[in-house]
Amino acid sequence: MIRKAIYPGTFDPITKGHLDLVDRGLKLFDQVIVAVAAESAKVPVFSLRERTEMAERCLEGVARVEVVSFQGLLVDFARKLKVQAIIRGLRAISDFESELQMALVNRKLGNEIETVFLTPKANYIYLSSSLVRKLAMLGGCIDDMVEPYVKAKLEEKFQKNRQ
Amino acid sequence: MIRKAIYPGTFDPITKGHLDLVDRGLKLFDQVIVAVAAESAKVPVFSLRERTEMAERCLEGVARVEVVSFQGLLVDFARKLKVQAIIRGLRAISDFESELQMALVNRKLGNEIETVFLTPKANYIYLSSSLVRKLAMLGGCIDDMVEPYVKAKLEEKFQKNRQ
Amino acid sequence: MIRKAIYPGTFDPITKGHLDLVDRGLKLFDQVIVAVAAESAKVPVFSLRERTEMAERCLEGVARVEVVSFQGLLVDFARKLKVQAIIRGLRAISDFESELQMALVNRKLGNEIETVFLTPKANYIYLSSSLVRKLAMLGGCIDDMVEPYVKAKLEEKFQKNRQ
Amino acid sequence: MIRKAIYPGTFDPITKGHLDLVDRGLKLFDQVIVAVAAESAKVPVFSLRERTEMAERCLEGVARVEVVSFQGLLVDFARKLKVQAIIRGLRAISDFESELQMALVNRKLGNEIETVFLTPKANYIYLSSSLVRKLAMLGGCIDDMVEPYVKAKLEEKFQKNRQ
Amino acid sequence: MIRKAIYPGTFDPITKGHLDLVDRGLKLFDQVIVAVAAESAKVPVFSLRERTEMAERCLEGVARVEVVSFQGLLVDFARKLKVQAIIRGLRAISDFESELQMALVNRKLGNEIETVFLTPKANYIYLSSSLVRKLAMLGGCIDDMVEPYVKAKLEEKFQKNRQ
Amino acid sequence: MIRKAIYPGTFDPITKGHLDLVDRGLKLFDQVIVAVAAESAKVPVFSLRERTEMAERCLEGVARVEVVSFQGLLVDFARKLKVQAIIRGLRAISDFESELQMALVNRKLGNEIETVFLTPKANYIYLSSSLVRKLAMLGGCIDDMVEPYVKAKLEEKFQKNRQ
Repeated sequence: MIRKAIYPGTFDPITKGHLDLVDRGLKLFDQVIVAVAAESAKVPVFSLRERTEMAERCLEGVARVEVVSFQGLLVDFARKLKVQAIIRGLRAISDFESELQMALVNRKLGNEIETVFLTPKANYIYLSSSLVRKLAMLGGCIDDMVEPYVKAKLEEKFQKNRQ
Repeated sequence: MIRKAIYPGTFDPITKGHLDLVDRGLKLFDQVIVAVAAESAKVPVFSLRERTEMAERCLEGVARVEVVSFQGLLVDFARKLKVQAIIRGLRAISDFESELQMALVNRKLGNEIETVFLTPKANYIYLSSSLVRKLAMLGGCIDDMVEPYVKAKLEEKFQKNRQ
Repeated sequence: MIRKAIYPGTFDPITKGHLDLVDRGLKLFDQVIVAVAAESAKVPVFSLRERTEMAERCLEGVARVEVVSFQGLLVDFARKLKVQAIIRGLRAISDFESELQMALVNRKLGNEIETVFLTPKANYIYLSSSLVRKLAMLGGCIDDMVEPYVKAKLEEKFQKNRQ
Repeated sequence: MIRKAIYPGTFDPITKGHLDLVDRGLKLFDQVIVAVAAESAKVPVFSLRERTEMAERCLEGVARVEVVSFQGLLVDFARKLKVQAIIRGLRAISDFESELQMALVNRKLGNEIETVFLTPKANYIYLSSSLVRKLAMLGGCIDDMVEPYVKAKLEEKFQKNRQ
Repeated sequence: MIRKAIYPGTFDPITKGHLDLVDRGLKLFDQVIVAVAAESAKVPVFSLRERTEMAERCLEGVARVEVVSFQGLLVDFARKLKVQAIIRGLRAISDFESELQMALVNRKLGNEIETVFLTPKANYIYLSSSLVRKLAMLGGCIDDMVEPYVKAKLEEKFQKNRQ
Repeated sequence: MIRKAIYPGTFDPITKGHLDLVDRGLKLFDQVIVAVAAESAKVPVFSLRERTEMAERCLEGVARVEVVSFQGLLVDFARKLKVQAIIRGLRAISDFESELQMALVNRKLGNEIETVFLTPKANYIYLSSSLVRKLAMLGGCIDDMVEPYVKAKLEEKFQKNRQ
């Protein structure tokens, strides 16, 4: 049996913490599908296309990984892909709260799919896309947090905003 | 490749919440090893032998599951068994805190083994071995919380204590 | 003495979790007043009129319950109604934090009125209006979460948005 | 209908925070029964008799309050007393966690009885019996935390221990 | 050596809780610089100029305190001012989470500057600028929460909004 | 004015996380007094003399630091030493809760002394004396967690226990 997992998120933008989690997922599953959500609670800074492209670039050449975008309900999409698991990262309490809620809701909606929580490297425990955006906007150093391609995209985005 | 996971704990005693987690682990892994720890922060109510036996009885006939007991460091034991993952249940915040600590420590000590957090059925989100022991001691109904064999063992244990 | 309690909220929209809490309130109080707040931290999806109407429909025929809307400070409104208590639901940690803050502030502002926290049915512990809105928007099944009338209203609202 | 509530605890010893909660309970219920539990997770410093006596002394002359001690399961005892509600205090997160667990368990065991959480005065938000015991043992001032009778009992207890 | 600390924030508006923290900072440092951030996660209600002016008015005549505004990254600004420490208030869990994140990030970005957490007076433990704004908007009493000058500014702001 | 801070704890045993905090304290204060508490909630593994000696050894030659042991109430001791501040480390939520409680109590008991919370290096965020003891007992590697002298003492202690 081929074991597939979906790793959903907004990835606005994808960080080294996300990439670390993909690596961890690959230790446990034969295939990891990075699924970029069209919809988001907050209006994303990057378009769906930009977010998907950044994820693709960062994961280029990584075997057994696929980047896709999706619309609508995660569980419906996961079911179509016939995955066994949803991968989620666990970093902090606030994370845990909403993650537990989503895990319970997703189980209700798609009972056969298990949510699997993995913890990132200790270095990335404080890292989030919103932190990266904030630092990039204020001109802070983000070299340890995102890949060079993403860094360039962030600089481009926030320069445009300033002009 | 055969995917093996270890599910460690004190199992004092094993509950329906634990059994639910074993089921979830079996969806993701080819083999799940329930590992009963000799040492525990608190002195267990049941002996290592009793705890292991209860786990064995409850999991009798379940394919792809093995019950073992172990002494010493979890990571050393997990390494010997060549497992890819440590399974842990996530129920509440206090859980999450110490679980995250153990996950980070275990990663430090045995970097190649991933800790995987799974959430039990919503019905079991409040369930713990200590709750079961407390209710059994006070004469509360625990039919929804443990298997009949474990219930009998608890009644036996607490009756002895009373005499 | 007649014991009256107010159950305030945005109710955007009212869920089965809210209705469960009204039932629990009715076990403790002679009268429960569901008070729909005009103001909200976030711009509500439904108008005050719509939110009040949905609450009325869901509670039609339930004895000892009244639905009202209010503007301004909860404590001022509660004092006018001569209630002894403010009912609030407790679901998760994040809830608890802001609820405790509001309870302390409301006590400061209206010392004679006690805030009473009740916990919903375990099934509803993950349920919130924002979750319902999100699922409705993405096309997920919400039959277990809201009454049919509210479900229809949500479908109507999000269909309009799509056109 | 007479509305009765039980306020259970170890009361080892009863503090001004507990007394504040009794007052709040009396605003909502016709009768409040302070129920001193024989059993406790930790071995109490004071005997059941001492704990009950201290509660009685502190509540002497307060109308509509009764102090009793009980053995076994809270829900069984509450059912015998025909109370509508269990009163619990909410102070901090750690509190909240175990309280929510007990509320869900108690509902399971005695569905007709509602757990009602009340918050103490802001001054007492940090106050607990274990804090009082610790301060008394180390010779700290506890005048704001317990009634004079309890203070005397604590001094007596810890002097004995030192001799 | 002169010990300087920076106390950064949005101060939208400055509250008695903030002023209490400045006092505490002055016990530990020779100089405390209140630094009003131009950028904020949410659009502030008051302009940078208004927020800075309110802080200045409330701290007029307090020795060893300076009010400044800043743009960009806190750590860059703190480094220019040659401060040894960043002061932050700790009130509640949610606070703690994001504060710990910022402390770790700031350490990464400006390793020589230490983040120092102080706790406000117990009375102010529930107090925040957003609570003050909400109460002011709804017409609640905020005399215990802000200085008269700030209260007047809030009234002015929310009256304008209503017209 | 000479700025002195006390850093109290059980130090059972002193870890690299504690030493990191002493370093951070020395950036802010002229003198840091490491105060080993005689009393502890749990019976310590090491005697007061052993705990004090380990702290002394680890801090030998570090300028402006003093190691002392104390009995009774921290605030009374701190007042005698005429310190301006109590230093405490903040690592996790559970920490935060009890730390906030102690900070509020200590302020009540000794109003002039400020509690200052510092965060350890990210590497030490999971580190605690109880973790070190547990790992040492189970034979895990603790080289990154304690100084060689402390490691030797732990090995000695747990070997004795085994014989």
